[in-house]
Amino acid sequence: MTTPTLLVLDADPLPRLGRLTGRARIEHTDEAALAERLPHADVLLVWDFTSRAVRSAWPGEGPRPRWVHTASAGVDHLMCPELVASDTVVTNARGIFDQPIAEYVAALVLTMAKDLPRTLELQRERTWRHRETQRVAGTRACIVGSGPIGRTIARTLQALDVTPAIVGRAAGTGVHGPEELDRLIARADWVIAAAPLTDQTYGMFDARRFGVMQPSARFINIGRGPLVVEDALAEALAKRWIAGAALDVFEHEPLTPDSPLWDVPGLIVSPHMSGDTIGWRDQLGLQFVELYERWAAGRPLLNVVDKKRGYVPGR
Amino acid sequence: MTTPTLLVLDADPLPRLGRLTGRARIEHTDEAALAERLPHADVLLVWDFTSRAVRSAWPGEGPRPRWVHTASAGVDHLMCPELVASDTVVTNARGIFDQPIAEYVAALVLTMAKDLPRTLELQRERTWRHRETQRVAGTRACIVGSGPIGRTIARTLQALDVTPAIVGRAAGTGVHGPEELDRLIARADWVIAAAPLTDQTYGMFDARRFGVMQPSARFINIGRGPLVVEDALAEALAKRWIAGAALDVFEHEPLTPDSPLWDVPGLIVSPHMSGDTIGWRDQLGLQFVELYERWAAGRPLLNVVDKKRGYVPGR
Repeated sequence: MTTPTLLVLDADPLPRLGRLTGRARIEHTDEAALAERLPHADVLLVWDFTSRAVRSAWPGEGPRPRWVHTASAGVDHLMCPELVASDTVVTNARGIFDQPIAEYVAALVLTMAKDLPRTLELQRERTWRHRETQRVAGTRACIVGSGPIGRTIARTLQALDVTPAIVGRAAGTGVHGPEELDRLIARADWVIAAAPLTDQTYGMFDARRFGVMQPSARFINIGRGPLVVEDALAEALAKRWIAGAALDVFEHEPLTPDSPLWDVPGLIVSPHMSGDTIGWRDQLGLQFVELYERWAAGRPLLNVVDKKRGYVPGR
Repeated sequence: MTTPTLLVLDADPLPRLGRLTGRARIEHTDEAALAERLPHADVLLVWDFTSRAVRSAWPGEGPRPRWVHTASAGVDHLMCPELVASDTVVTNARGIFDQPIAEYVAALVLTMAKDLPRTLELQRERTWRHRETQRVAGTRACIVGSGPIGRTIARTLQALDVTPAIVGRAAGTGVHGPEELDRLIARADWVIAAAPLTDQTYGMFDARRFGVMQPSARFINIGRGPLVVEDALAEALAKRWIAGAALDVFEHEPLTPDSPLWDVPGLIVSPHMSGDTIGWRDQLGLQFVELYERWAAGRPLLNVVDKKRGYVPGR
């Protein structure tokens, strides 16, 4: 058997790849050269998960990688009809981001309940102003997204005595179906978007949905930007339909300095970092090496994406 | 039996006191009139727990209240040798603040781990700057103070997969003795001051103790201001002996606008509000009414302070 060619999109340092020395012919590519290199690769590692180049570069016919791995939980950035139709296997970084993102959501929930942004403002103004804050225990969260990230968020919030409800694509054990979404967000103190970006979830948080929420509710998106109609969220905050929001992901990333989102009152903006704790690149690299070893040995891959649905199904 | 006289220090509205109509002759006093009124009162309710007037107004001899209740967890503001020596019973608001303060500490821990203050700064500057943040799970906390507040903090952090160690006045089940303090803060990621203010704890967090901590450690004080030598903390932060701190309590409260603490880099300043969630005044009022009913019925009081030690002993 010849040594397989592993094509890596983006030349960022990826230390753990050294473990594949002698077992893979590793080639790096940038977006410009991707279309030309793809037909000669056995495996594509999408290390630059912000790139959308795979969608346009994917070969319609003829030779193509047998396996594509993306160092991200979402796969929306690489899916195209040709890839979906092909027999190429797609895997993702399922598992790496669950706990970091759940902690990040807990940080946002507690920060908003305890009014910490205002505390920091008052500190800058050297002003001592006592306020009463909210108890988190006893509140209700609705988590939209029933994958490992959504379920880890639910577990983490429950540890803080928040009552979580998970909404998924279909009802199941511990998961409510989409028909219950409006009822659940209408009584939630915290609405948390943790769904993959699919045709079903695109723009699901729109003016109507924000209108259903309680005036005291807070909305958090750590999933994908286009789950949210950003203008509608800004308007819902301006009109006090909801009490606050935090976005870690956006329709267009990075946000440019002239984006109106930076100074929407009541909105916390963070730069797509909720899952990225120290060591995350190393963990992503290690996860890929382990998957590669399985693949090279002919054993079944893990984290296999249902390409039609756009995520890894099941638990 | 004549209706007992209940003297309330501070005339703040205290709605639940209406429940004692006919069962107590309720009189309000300010600090100036306290000394004159005290000998005629059966019970003193220190509703204004920021006042230190009880210490100077307490009668040396002769008639005095048989019971003093303070609507606070700490009792340092009212203790004086004459009160300690007397047979007057002192009770506090044990229990009301435990969970709110524990949530507040969790909020600070997560906020610091996830670098949220910097995120809010960058948002103000309309700057997208991705950073890697810290995982809270797997870190270690040392909580100084083994009362219900310290123990609730420990339980809450443990729910976030932080490993807590509690240090108390004496070793016991789940509590380390003071001789272990330096060893435990030397390896803690989070050092949390939740002790009462007593002769033993006054100034315990000084330059030497900050010097023992890890450069990556964060320090949080939600106990009493004088537990901390504030200048030493500011210097420890400036010299990067520790990575960050949050103070909710101070030697002199409120902080004046010219206090140097407002802009110590790496320090979060909040106005003594960690335990004060919506409804707290109502809960404090209700707790007092329940204690009053016990007292009037001749049943033993709860939350009885060991006046020599300066806190409610035991669990």
